[in-house]
Amino acid sequence: MKKLKTLFAVCAVGVFGALSGSAEEGMFLPNRLPENVLQGRYNFTTTTHWRRLIQRASIRFPNGSGSFVSTRGLVFTNHHIAIDCAEKLSSEEDNIVENGFLAKTLAEERPCPDLELNVLDSIEDGTEQVQAAVKPEMIPSEATLARRAVRNTLEAEKSKETGLKCEVVSLWHGARYHLYCYRRYSDVRLVFLPEIGIARFGGDPDNFEFPRYVLDIAFLRVYENGQPFRPKANYRWRSRSVREDELIFVTGHPGRTARLDTVDSVEFLRDTAYPQTLNLLRRYEIALQQFALEGREQARRADHDLFSIQNSRKAYTGFLRKLQDPAFFAKKEEEEKEFRAQVEASPRIRALYASAWGDISSAEIDRGLNYTEYRMLESRLGFYSQLFRLARMLVRLAQERELPNAERLPEYSEKNIPRLEQILFSPAPIYKDLETAKLSASLTLLVETLGADDELVKTVLSGNDPRAQAFRLVEGTRLADVAFRRKLAEGGMAAVRAGRDPMIELALAVDPLARRVRRIFEEAAELKRQGSTKLFDALRLIRGTAGYPDATFTLRVSYGTVKDYREQGKTVRFATRLRGLYRRAEDHENLRPWKLPQRWLEKKDDLDPDTMFNFASTHDITGGNSGSPVISRQGEVVGIVFDSNLQGLGNEFAYSDEQGRAVSVSAQAVVEALRKVYDANELADELGR
Amino acid sequence: MKKLKTLFAVCAVGVFGALSGSAEEGMFLPNRLPENVLQGRYNFTTTTHWRRLIQRASIRFPNGSGSFVSTRGLVFTNHHIAIDCAEKLSSEEDNIVENGFLAKTLAEERPCPDLELNVLDSIEDGTEQVQAAVKPEMIPSEATLARRAVRNTLEAEKSKETGLKCEVVSLWHGARYHLYCYRRYSDVRLVFLPEIGIARFGGDPDNFEFPRYVLDIAFLRVYENGQPFRPKANYRWRSRSVREDELIFVTGHPGRTARLDTVDSVEFLRDTAYPQTLNLLRRYEIALQQFALEGREQARRADHDLFSIQNSRKAYTGFLRKLQDPAFFAKKEEEEKEFRAQVEASPRIRALYASAWGDISSAEIDRGLNYTEYRMLESRLGFYSQLFRLARMLVRLAQERELPNAERLPEYSEKNIPRLEQILFSPAPIYKDLETAKLSASLTLLVETLGADDELVKTVLSGNDPRAQAFRLVEGTRLADVAFRRKLAEGGMAAVRAGRDPMIELALAVDPLARRVRRIFEEAAELKRQGSTKLFDALRLIRGTAGYPDATFTLRVSYGTVKDYREQGKTVRFATRLRGLYRRAEDHENLRPWKLPQRWLEKKDDLDPDTMFNFASTHDITGGNSGSPVISRQGEVVGIVFDSNLQGLGNEFAYSDEQGRAVSVSAQAVVEALRKVYDANELADELGR
Repeated sequence: MKKLKTLFAVCAVGVFGALSGSAEEGMFLPNRLPENVLQGRYNFTTTTHWRRLIQRASIRFPNGSGSFVSTRGLVFTNHHIAIDCAEKLSSEEDNIVENGFLAKTLAEERPCPDLELNVLDSIEDGTEQVQAAVKPEMIPSEATLARRAVRNTLEAEKSKETGLKCEVVSLWHGARYHLYCYRRYSDVRLVFLPEIGIARFGGDPDNFEFPRYVLDIAFLRVYENGQPFRPKANYRWRSRSVREDELIFVTGHPGRTARLDTVDSVEFLRDTAYPQTLNLLRRYEIALQQFALEGREQARRADHDLFSIQNSRKAYTGFLRKLQDPAFFAKKEEEEKEFRAQVEASPRIRALYASAWGDISSAEIDRGLNYTEYRMLESRLGFYSQLFRLARMLVRLAQERELPNAERLPEYSEKNIPRLEQILFSPAPIYKDLETAKLSASLTLLVETLGADDELVKTVLSGNDPRAQAFRLVEGTRLADVAFRRKLAEGGMAAVRAGRDPMIELALAVDPLARRVRRIFEEAAELKRQGSTKLFDALRLIRGTAGYPDATFTLRVSYGTVKDYREQGKTVRFATRLRGLYRRAEDHENLRPWKLPQRWLEKKDDLDPDTMFNFASTHDITGGNSGSPVISRQGEVVGIVFDSNLQGLGNEFAYSDEQGRAVSVSAQAVVEALRKVYDANELADELGR
Repeated sequence: MKKLKTLFAVCAVGVFGALSGSAEEGMFLPNRLPENVLQGRYNFTTTTHWRRLIQRASIRFPNGSGSFVSTRGLVFTNHHIAIDCAEKLSSEEDNIVENGFLAKTLAEERPCPDLELNVLDSIEDGTEQVQAAVKPEMIPSEATLARRAVRNTLEAEKSKETGLKCEVVSLWHGARYHLYCYRRYSDVRLVFLPEIGIARFGGDPDNFEFPRYVLDIAFLRVYENGQPFRPKANYRWRSRSVREDELIFVTGHPGRTARLDTVDSVEFLRDTAYPQTLNLLRRYEIALQQFALEGREQARRADHDLFSIQNSRKAYTGFLRKLQDPAFFAKKEEEEKEFRAQVEASPRIRALYASAWGDISSAEIDRGLNYTEYRMLESRLGFYSQLFRLARMLVRLAQERELPNAERLPEYSEKNIPRLEQILFSPAPIYKDLETAKLSASLTLLVETLGADDELVKTVLSGNDPRAQAFRLVEGTRLADVAFRRKLAEGGMAAVRAGRDPMIELALAVDPLARRVRRIFEEAAELKRQGSTKLFDALRLIRGTAGYPDATFTLRVSYGTVKDYREQGKTVRFATRLRGLYRRAEDHENLRPWKLPQRWLEKKDDLDPDTMFNFASTHDITGGNSGSPVISRQGEVVGIVFDSNLQGLGNEFAYSDEQGRAVSVSAQAVVEALRKVYDANELADELGR
């Protein structure tokens, strides 16, 4: 599933975006659509209305995408995006994840404990300001701080001026800076969620596969001042299914691509980042499986992490397969060689830009040398625990608030405080048994990677083995208590220290080393950014105008068509039907993860078996696009993206529509299910209104 | 489960055995029983008859232990030891693993495709011969070859003289050499196997836990000349259950312990060997889970590997937990410090032995530097495939047969040829889909560990990605055909090369590097062995006589008592009853892995709920002890060892009876189940007769 991989995201800094698209390649900026191609190839011209609609009706989730689909603030997204809220609302007694949820009235809609949605309001160019602040003569450490200061300041000024949440977005990996301002919505309520048995039908084995049969959808509603919010625009709904070869669009928030990374950068991913990440994912997958086997309630508690990890594990396996393919790599090397030859060919271009490869290469070496420590300490993978995450936040919030806004770590700058407080003060439950299991597994990893004789490791363990120490920390901390967290957050560093909380003390002990390795990493990123900017400029000089930047978890538009593909000598048809869902369940004896919810078994005969269920299209998407609406030329929702097939995972490094496909739930199936399986006629009636 | 971990065994070379036992510690040589302790503490004196019985009725399996329990060659072992045979006899249509198996007549007993059992016949001391051949002035590479030559020669001479399979066993890690001669039996037939649902009740979550409820037993029969074999001795059977504190014995084949390894050696395990092994196990566990999810038949095919890997993963997790415990390590360091001080205190002892620690330390450094390559190439972990295993065997058999016996790799020396041929010509099925999945996962690992630019890796992949290349190799090889393997084995190197088989060509390509790294490893082992011998001698001088050597997968006797223990403030009673089995199934809604076979549900009311099912005792056991009979003072079988609890896993490094326990099936439950669940009265009648 194409959600953003957060905790497990490999923090690669891509080099620069694809410059020339082939086929239906491209994740286009909303203010830089490929008008010529659309006009020339599809006889489609965007209107001001259409472009405004896209911007105003598209929504960014913390880990994916969504859209407004009614005038009353109804939000359409994936089940696997909304499940984060649903899990926080679930308990052993009231398991809405297992049983599904439908609010029959507004009053029954249930507030998500800590969800913030963002809607893009405006885009401005800030390149000049940023580039003026970062002088060419600065060494990387100075440049890092200067860049941080100008970004924090620009964001604060603009946020203050507009009352919005404004972010500087680095495009083409530092060659351009745009200032994106978002309206934020933090009163979001759950309206409808199908049973997990149909939303995740086929589970891990079917994930990233096609043909596919899932109802991976959910509806939420945005409120303002206690009333359903009236968005500036919303998509209309089209229940007529898509046709083969139909031109359709995906609007959403692809998280990260590394398409034109240099060979050195991609080698870093292939040889260091991805193998380490996969080892880690497998470790935590097994640990969580073991925990889940202890009983039904443990399985429920572990589900969120386990699914997220399995999803990432499958995705990274796909990425690594592409990188380990000698043919892919040979092509990549060939392309880079050719580009370098072009740079070398002109003395002027060479003098300006040829040093870029060396800079990037040495940045990757620095990252490689510090990668494990960075991931363990700064990315918290050695402390896999929500309680530790909160402890880290409280410690850093207190520390950073003592600094002027310009000097703060970006995630603690003023514009992010409301979101941080939403997370810190969330009433979502924290399960101590699960926390202990996760922390135990990760402390074991910490000892393995940093070594039992490491001074920090000794401090962390305090003479206990990892399991015993995890138990002690989780039992000893008071951070599960929201009031306690609020007290520490409001009391600053003095309160944080006075609490003498073992988890806080752990976070304090880890912090100096974590910050040190972060600094090294950021300086390497700066060096790489400077190199990448040179490559971008060189490429523009040699080959002309740019197409689209690598993904940045900001709003993008992809165009594409509904299409079959060939696999192992056979044609895979572009769509599945409800008929196929029942057949697949029967093929697997209706056993988990192919076990259909009771309601679906009972309503089988009421459903039209020809209803299009899931479909495949050639869109250029990646993680973060989950929940993206699929819209027609007319701006109507015809489906919702939830996945790509395994071949589509290669989009991370190079787009190909030979076999790679985006996979969506059809809008037709949504209405069929709402009306006939869930008796949710009112909700179905509201769609597009 | 305490079976020998073969493919995944970490090839540590332990330093020297424990010298002084405390409590009920000790894995004693059959010709060096702790008579004084038994007499003094338990008023028990072994008789010649008793000692002969132990030797003649105990059986070594390739991966565990067993015993003769009737005059007609009936063999008693664990289900998880006999399952290797049962899986080879099973198919999708005739799934005896799932459904269980009972031969009602001799004619119905089913020959195991490639099982060889060994019964110890005689022990002689060969220390002088070995030590005379290995001169003190030799450098490690010379000493390695000299030691190999004298061992191969002694074994060949003695085997020729006796007609038996004779092996030189290195005890106290090279300080002593004994020559063990075994009778071998290769016509072994399956008599009884319970359903996997009861034999492995509780599956991975219950594995290494106590209280426990499994019928982890099986019966086989040895034939000679087509008739049931009459063993020289067999254990009698006692259906009366064990009593609390009763003195009982375990006779079996513990595989490996590392009790008195130096701190450097244990650090190597903690920091390098075990973490790498666990990463690998988790990798293959996930890969096999994915394969098993494809369908019921795939799950059946993958079960053997998956179970074996999960079992190892849980065991190594336990080992590593012990090693990561700062308290354990501090004690270990303290002991070593004290011993070193004693050595340093006497100028004479110091001059002779103080260099040992340095030698061992540098041996561990050599091993650490080459560990990954050794495991990938020589231990075949980069080629996780039965077909590759056969290819390696064929290639090496051809190569080694061209050498004089004294110079051959030990596993290809004359005495081992019959066993090699049994494996090579086994009619056991090989599943190409499973082979592809395993090889694909391991080639991916190979690229990650050796690097995509490594010349051998490039050769192995031949321009394909790991998955595609695995498919190509498995589809292209003819090694699944027994007749083809026979042709290559009989035709020597010429036939092996002429076959132009892709898997053989892979094995040929890997061989030079694999042999090179093996040589490095063996020289390090020699250096370590020499250091360990010095430490052994020093310890004997300082502290007096020896107790028992570290485990060597040869016959050992442990004594111990049936005992409760305390855990998290509660008493864990020493035994479970059949009543508890049904309760546990109900607690888990009779869902897998706690799903009882239909027969057990139907016969519930016939069974005596008070029957003792599994019991815990203080015996000093480890992996390889699986299937060991538990016998009374009178030499009667009262149970069968199948596991230890999690705390007992620490036996690898230090025995403790505080919480560590051996876990057995009671002989009482065996008879109750045979008579009342399986209607196997004839088999029950034969026990002990």
